[in-house]
Order: sequence, then structure tokens, then C-alpha cells
Amino acid sequence: MGKNLTPRNEDYSKWYNELVVQADLAENSAVRGCMVIKPYGYAIWEKMQAQLDKRFKETGHQNAYFPLFVPKSLFEAEEKNAEGFAKECAVVTHYRLKTDENNPGKLIVDPEAKLEEELVVRPTSEAIIWNTYKGWIQSYRDLPLLINQWANVVRWEMRTRLFLRTAEFLWQEGHTAHATREEALAETEQMNNIYAEFVENFMAIPVIKGAKTESERFAGAVETYCIEALMQDGKALQAGTSHFLGQNFAEAFDVKFTSKEGKQEYVWASSWGVSTRLMGALIMTHSDDKGLVLPPNLAPIQVVIVPIYRNDEQFNAISEEAKLLTEELRAVGISVKFDGRDTHKPGWKFAQYELQGVPLRIAIGPKDLENGTVELARRDTLTKEFVKREDVVAKAKGLMTEIQDTLLKKALDFRNDHITEVDDFKEFKKVLKNKGGFISAHWDGTTETEDRIKEYTKATIRCIPFNGKKEEGICVLTGKPSSQRVLFAKAY
Amino acid sequence: MGKNLTPRNEDYSKWYNELVVQADLAENSAVRGCMVIKPYGYAIWEKMQAQLDKRFKETGHQNAYFPLFVPKSLFEAEEKNAEGFAKECAVVTHYRLKTDENNPGKLIVDPEAKLEEELVVRPTSEAIIWNTYKGWIQSYRDLPLLINQWANVVRWEMRTRLFLRTAEFLWQEGHTAHATREEALAETEQMNNIYAEFVENFMAIPVIKGAKTESERFAGAVETYCIEALMQDGKALQAGTSHFLGQNFAEAFDVKFTSKEGKQEYVWASSWGVSTRLMGALIMTHSDDKGLVLPPNLAPIQVVIVPIYRNDEQFNAISEEAKLLTEELRAVGISVKFDGRDTHKPGWKFAQYELQGVPLRIAIGPKDLENGTVELARRDTLTKEFVKREDVVAKAKGLMTEIQDTLLKKALDFRNDHITEVDDFKEFKKVLKNKGGFISAHWDGTTETEDRIKEYTKATIRCIPFNGKKEEGICVLTGKPSSQRVLFAKAY
Ligand SMILES: [Zn+2]
Ligand SMILES: [Zn+2]
Repeated sequence: MGKNLTPRNEDYSKWYNELVVQADLAENSAVRGCMVIKPYGYAIWEKMQAQLDKRFKETGHQNAYFPLFVPKSLFEAEEKNAEGFAKECAVVTHYRLKTDENNPGKLIVDPEAKLEEELVVRPTSEAIIWNTYKGWIQSYRDLPLLINQWANVVRWEMRTRLFLRTAEFLWQEGHTAHATREEALAETEQMNNIYAEFVENFMAIPVIKGAKTESERFAGAVETYCIEALMQDGKALQAGTSHFLGQNFAEAFDVKFTSKEGKQEYVWASSWGVSTRLMGALIMTHSDDKGLVLPPNLAPIQVVIVPIYRNDEQFNAISEEAKLLTEELRAVGISVKFDGRDTHKPGWKFAQYELQGVPLRIAIGPKDLENGTVELARRDTLTKEFVKREDVVAKAKGLMTEIQDTLLKKALDFRNDHITEVDDFKEFKKVLKNKGGFISAHWDGTTETEDRIKEYTKATIRCIPFNGKKEEGICVLTGKPSSQRVLFAKAY
Repeated sequence: MGKNLTPRNEDYSKWYNELVVQADLAENSAVRGCMVIKPYGYAIWEKMQAQLDKRFKETGHQNAYFPLFVPKSLFEAEEKNAEGFAKECAVVTHYRLKTDENNPGKLIVDPEAKLEEELVVRPTSEAIIWNTYKGWIQSYRDLPLLINQWANVVRWEMRTRLFLRTAEFLWQEGHTAHATREEALAETEQMNNIYAEFVENFMAIPVIKGAKTESERFAGAVETYCIEALMQDGKALQAGTSHFLGQNFAEAFDVKFTSKEGKQEYVWASSWGVSTRLMGALIMTHSDDKGLVLPPNLAPIQVVIVPIYRNDEQFNAISEEAKLLTEELRAVGISVKFDGRDTHKPGWKFAQYELQGVPLRIAIGPKDLENGTVELARRDTLTKEFVKREDVVAKAKGLMTEIQDTLLKKALDFRNDHITEVDDFKEFKKVLKNKGGFISAHWDGTTETEDRIKEYTKATIRCIPFNGKKEEGICVLTGKPSSQRVLFAKAY
């Protein structure tokens, strides 16, 4: 602590990297591309997990756990999926180390302990799970199968950034099996909606729901639905995806069921996931040059109480008061920390809790005790006010909701200000360069055009929005006909 | 379902394997030695996690997450630890697969994507964590550092059994850093006590707390404390361990702190863990020839309601009543399932819920509606009784405690009946063969004697019990002097 963050307008990327580390959220580890999630960052992730898990269970899903490793022969069974992940997967080839005879105290891989079949560290679990489902599904009575897994996965990314893109990350992956195409599609949509609702109401991040184009789809999916968020630097971030897998995995792993009519049919599938990448979205949506800004719904500490004192007598009197206040706040469900450390000055503490995004700070000094007041400071607006002691609890409780709403509204305004309708490719490039954000433009529906636009501008189609109005138009690049605008953006 | 389990007295091991699969707890996967934890088994594990996590946090620990991989150079830094795990670790050597040109659709390891340094899939995380702690600890003000991680680990075991010994398993591992030896030892003991309290009060499994002998210690530990349970077949099971690591890892990773007196000192450490192995202990302690028996504190479904009916009219009337009862039971905190499926007969359902260990079954038939009663069946005692409708909720609530207590008492009686004091080696072998359980015997304190006893009998020293009385005696094998009895047993 103590160092200032690089301001966002100077170098957004540097600001982000510094913030993640200085706010004690995560750090790089000794393993290339893998992060250590520090206790404060992990506490936020746990709150996200708890909310998501509740929603999954309320909609009839159960948790289970499948192996970390995928034997190569299973990994390659669904060809497109295999192709999509083969280039970036960690492969276990041996199961033993032995002493290096030329190098006392050192170990080498034991060449005699080579696996007959290599094991891929799961980059995603469709293969191992559908191979398992084969044994679980015989009849329509076994369907739907609604299962979720909380797990770590590994994708050997070359350019990594804390939370946003790491070789190992934590996520949940739902894998469901259905008797009909319609049911699987409905599940795919339901889970995308659950993600949207969670991200908006708990993370205070507005998202646009839509479908991916073919080239942006999950490897092995028939359709990929997604929620797309916009970061403060005008770049989009895919916050969650839900895939309709058709019968691709059922065919690859020969998973059939006997229908009510007694026919053998392939099972229909969905899969869906969100990951610790959401932490990156959370940080980049709300935070400022002073550090993290957290929505109260996800803040590990919602209120911090800092005593201002010059001697033991004052400290004891303030502590007494702070202890009472802490109990009162906890009684209404607010998480509170009292920071009575004598090793740090109040100013240092103020800066520290600002850096860590504690939504509300209460300072109590000798004057406050006399006057029956406290000083309340909001992290989101950086405003301060004196509040009567007897009003503090009600005020704090109200602010929990108000801050949450304010953050969402602010992010929503920003997002809406940064959706620009464009009908001309010159304008497209200009808006992308000068303003950023989403560009709503007509597209002729071909991968070729999509690729060319990406090549020229680095912008990709983030989604074909579900709520987009049907509107005849012409493609912004080729002038060919189009029936709906899609959203382009540069993306994380 | 439908198949009977092999009775325990015929083949205990077969009974266990069948039970785990038939009760839908877990199954073997396509990956050698790795299991799939099925939703019902995972739901029990989640309840265990929640309780443990609560206890860890109440004692000041925070969760975090460290990388899955350990670079070989870190893995080998603490020599004894490395030696202990080198022989059974999964090693990642490559980071890419490529198309096999001789075999269309197949993939091979890309020889050009060989890692410069191999990565060990963590068998335990002391190495990667202490390498990280080096950056976190400078001063005594940074101590104690009290961190826990929920994670998967991999140990390449050759003989695996569901839950008891699997190549991949789930666990929590606590890793703490302290300024003094005394503090680290106190933490080691505290966590062993927390494990004991949890296992006894939630799993209804009595345990003996003690210390491991040198040869049974964790690789790299100065002391290993443990809790030892006794299974129904007379074999012991180590249910949790807590290690005092001294300064071994601090020295290996050069983690020093500035003391209050301004001196540079190595940090003191503890680590402690329990794993999905506890599921095996739970199953083997309480279950019977009809299937799983679950203590109510860990049962995903505490009460199941089964309707007995011959026509729709009866079904509807019973369902109505069952719905009311479900609400009443939930209102007092009992988890309830109403099984109204018309695809299965009541008898089938009774057997199924017995197999899955649901503590209490309520059957409601047309006669019950008339008489204002229900039939209550306890899974632990297999006893049934009619209870007045208005008494059901109170009765069920009382039984949740009573069943929990009964299971613990039964297991405790069995355990106490199977601790045999022995002073003669012939008797030692006889008791071990005919009765099993723990043998409380004098031992001369040498690894040599311990090894010889193991060689002769397959029994190992499970622990030197903390509550054992000091008593002069002579070693059961060598006749040399001894000051305390230790507990021997064959073990899982
Ligand atoms: Zn702007
Ligand atoms: Zn016996």
C-alpha cells in the first residue's frame, strides 16, 4: 500500500494490473500463467459462488464432481471440441519422478513411468462427462439430467492476465441432458438468463443477452448464447456463455435413450459456465483511480469502522461505541470490520479501505462521541456526511441498497452511452477508435465479412442481441442485405 | 437398484464397493483410479464442507486458491516432502496436442510443445504455498498467516478404492505461518481438535486423537497429529491429520521474518487436511446389509414421505396431506422429499431409501388419513411405529437428534469394545486375527520394532494417544522398556 495507482486515462491496462495486486485480490505465481487468488479476492469469489449455486439448485440442478483428467482417446472423440482445445492443453505423460543420479537432491521424470495413454488436464469437461452419462442414461425416465460442477480447468493461454485470462482458472460448468431439442434449447436460454440476472443484480453489471456467430461459438456447440458487458475503456467482456450442443456429444459418445414411444434416440445437450473471469469484469466495471469499488452485495466487508484518537482513554471510549455499533449493524445483516490497529494511522486506513473497495466507512472521533454523531463516507461517490448516532444503522442499511443501485445505474448509463448505431464503415472505424464501446451495425451474415472486419479493425461480433429489433438494412462493409443489427466491439 | 448387497460378514470389501455404487455415491471413471462423485454423494460432501468451512472461519482462517501445478524445481526444494511424493505424482510435460498425420481424426502430443520445466500436479501444496508466502511475510506483523484451500489433489496410487484411495481426490488443506514454535504447535493441535469435534458431532464417528510415530509422519513434518477411527471390520482409518512442520518449509523456501526484537528468523508452520476419504469412513462406520445409514446431520434428505395408494383419488388426498406435512417439517428445519412417482411401487421406494440411508421414512396410506396417523420408520434401527398426525413434526424433530446420538453411541460402543490391551506378542497376533480393532500395547519406541511388527502382522502403529496414561511396561515384541501404550491396528 501507499503507492498510487496509475490513473485509468493514462494506462487502463496498467491501472488494472496494479489494482488487482495492490487491492490484495490476486497475484502471479511461480507457474507461468497461473494465479494465486488471495484471501480478499477469494472471499468475493465465494460470495459469487454462493449466489450462483443457490440459483442452480433452485432450478433443479445438482452438483457432482468429474475427473480432472481426460484420456486422449476421449478428448478427441468430439472432433470440433478436440480441435478447439488441442492447441492449448496441458498433457500428463508420466506418473513418477525419480532421483537424478547425476544431480544429488534433484529429481527427473522417470522414463519407465510413461503412461500408456496420455491424459489431458481438462480445459472443459464435455468429453469426460458425456462418456460418463452413457452409463447413466437409458430411458426417457433418466432425463432431464441437470448437473453442475465447480472445478478448476486449464487452458494453456500464451498471453495471460490476472482473472481475465489465466492458464488455470476456477469456474462452474453445467452439463445437462434432455429428451428433446426444445427442452435443451430452453435450458440453454434459462441458464443464460440466470447468469444475466445474477450479474446485473449482484455484480451491478448490465449485460446484453444474445447469440454468438458461428466463428465465435464454443467448439462443439450448435448455438452459443452469451452475456456481454462493457468495461470502462470501451472494450467488451464476455461474462458468461450457455451452449446448445445439439446431439453432437451424444453422437460422439453414443449416448442414446429409449423414448416414451420405445424408439432409440440420441440425447440433446446443453453446457454453460462462468469463471473467475467475472472478477475481472467486476473490477473493471466499477473501480476508479483510488482503487476497487465493490457493490455491497458482493463486498466481504460492507462497513469498516475506523477510530480517530490521540490517547488510550479516547481509544477505549470510541472502541466501546464501535463495538455497540458493530453489533447493531450485524443485527441487520451488514458485515462490519472494526480496525482498531495502533500500527497504522487513520489516513493510511482510509486509503487502504478505499483501495479495497469497502462500500461504507464510518469514522468516530472524540468530537463525534460528544456530539452523538459519526462520519459516514461512501466509497462509490467519495462523499462524506455526519450522521446522528441513532440514525446510523438505518442510514447504513439504506445505503447498501442505494450504493448497489447507483453502481448499476452508472454502469448502465455508461454502457447505453456507448452503443453507437453506425451505417458506414468509415464511421465504424472512427467510432471504434475515438469512442469505443459497442457498435450496432448491419452485417451480411457471412463469416468472411466478419473476418475481414476483424482484420481491419480488431473488432469482433460480440453477439446478435436477442432484444434487437428486426430492421432491414445493408451490411456496413459489403452493402449486402441484412435483417438485424449486431453488436461489434473490441473485446477482452 | 433391486440387487441385494453382498452381506458384510461374507465379504466386507465387496459389500463396501457395491454399496458405494448402488447408493449412487460414486463410481469409477474412464481415468484409472479417478472417481466420479455422483450428485447424492456430492451432496453429503457439500454438507461436510459447509461445517468444516464454518469452523475454519470461526477460528480466524481465510480461504484462498493456489495453482494446481508445482514446477519441478519447487517440488524438490523440501527434500523429505519431495521424496515422499515423487514416486506417485502426475507430471505435465507438454502443453499442446496436434493432429496425427498418419491417423486422421486422432491427436498426438506435439513434441515441439515440450515444457522447459516439468510441472507436477499438486499431491499437496506446501511447496507452491511456501514459495508464495515468501512474498507475503516480512515482519512479525504479517503473522500469523492462517489460510485454507479447498482443492483437488493427485497422488498416483496403484491400488485404488472409491473414496478411500483414489488418484484424484478432493480435500481442504490448511497452511499456516507463525512467529513461534509454540504458536504453530498450538495451531496444529487446535485443528486436530476441530477435526475430532466435527467428525464426532456431525459424522457420528468416534475418534482417538494422538500423534504419529516417525515412520507414519507426513513427509516433511516434525510431528503429525491425527484422528483415528475404527471401521466395522476392525480396521482403523485415519480420518484427518494435522502437521507441525517446524521450520522445514521456511528453510527450504527461505521464508524469514523480522521479529519484534528486530532479528531475522525462520517462520514456523503447520498444515492440516481432511479429504473425500471421510466419505469412506462415514459409509463404513454406520451402514448395514441393507445399505447406507446416514447421521441426520449430514443426510441430504432427512425425511422421505412415501404415499401408499390404489387410485388417483387416494393419491390426491394423500398428496395433499403430504404437502402440508412437508411444509411443517421444513418449517422446523428438516429437509424433506415427497416421492410421488407413479413409476415405482412403495416397496421399491422403501428399499431404495433404505439403500440410500434416509434417516426417517414416513408412509401415508388411506387408512392413515382416516385414523389421523402416519407410519414412521427409522433407518438406523429399522423399527416402525404409528404416530398421530399432530405429533409427527415434534417426533421427527426429536428423532433427528436421537438417531444422531444413537449412531454415535453405537459406533462408540463398538470402538471401545475393540480396544484390547495386550502384553504378549502371541496374544497380539491372536487378537489381531480373531477380533481385530485397536491393540493397546507397549512398544520400545524404535522404528525397527515397528517395522518388524508390521512385517509379521501387517498392523501399524495408528497413533500414540494423547489421552493415554503414562504406564511403565515392556515392549510387546522386544521386551525393552516402554513408558506408554500405543495403538496398533491394521488400517485402510
Ligand atoms: Zn466514452
Ligand atoms: Zn468384533
